[in-house]
Amino acid sequence: MTAFSLDPRLAADTRPVIDLPLSRLVMMRAVDHPWLILVPRQPDLVEILDLSEHDRRWLFDEVAEVAAALKAETGADKLNIGALGNVVAQLHVHVIARFRDDPAWPNPVWGRPAQRPRGSDVDADLAARLARRLAGS
Amino acid sequence: MTAFSLDPRLAADTRPVIDLPLSRLVMMRAVDHPWLILVPRQPDLVEILDLSEHDRRWLFDEVAEVAAALKAETGADKLNIGALGNVVAQLHVHVIARFRDDPAWPNPVWGRPAQRPRGSDVDADLAARLARRLAGS
Repeated sequence: MTAFSLDPRLAADTRPVIDLPLSRLVMMRAVDHPWLILVPRQPDLVEILDLSEHDRRWLFDEVAEVAAALKAETGADKLNIGALGNVVAQLHVHVIARFRDDPAWPNPVWGRPAQRPRGSDVDADLAARLARRLAGS
Repeated sequence: MTAFSLDPRLAADTRPVIDLPLSRLVMMRAVDHPWLILVPRQPDLVEILDLSEHDRRWLFDEVAEVAAALKAETGADKLNIGALGNVVAQLHVHVIARFRDDPAWPNPVWGRPAQRPRGSDVDADLAARLARRLAGS
């Protein structure tokens, strides 16, 4: 039995937002879109099928809660939600705010280099607002 | 109040697999990977947030059930699960079987032309096996 620790690549690419009851919520740095990632704080998870049924439902509730907060804070035209894990094996779920005028629209943003990285101050402000919104829920 | 009907583009690109209690399950034709799509049979859905809480949980239970069936039938190295909807607005959730030796690995497969389309007979056989597996659940 090993303890949970955030995958080093996820840790390097993100800033922390808040710990929800099941998941650590982090935000990607220096990307074109507000881009959140939920990581259930349990060791050795790869697929959503590796969670217990109870925890899988809890994770999806947290995904919906985060999606609603991101939509409210950004006014996104569309949310993109995905669990891929082809590169980073540790189970994680992306919740990304997309806009019809964003550089990659309508393509997915995974594996695509950022065209115009957003300033870290903007990222930090959005992360703080999301943390406040999610802390009360 | 309009009735549910499958988006014409989804209908053209897929074959039916089975109707689950909430979702129509279809399978993409002529792609490199076993690729399933769940479409909740309700009109006017775009985001998962448009579903009632009850139905959203039901959808995610069906996603997990389909994911388990696809993994069992294909032996996939990794499942890719996503709700994007940047091109086809009607709410739909992808469940895709990925393999370390598939043509796109480790990139996502959305928006990527197929390199070596699988035969329609293979697709039909997998669709039939998945339908049988899911019918009893």
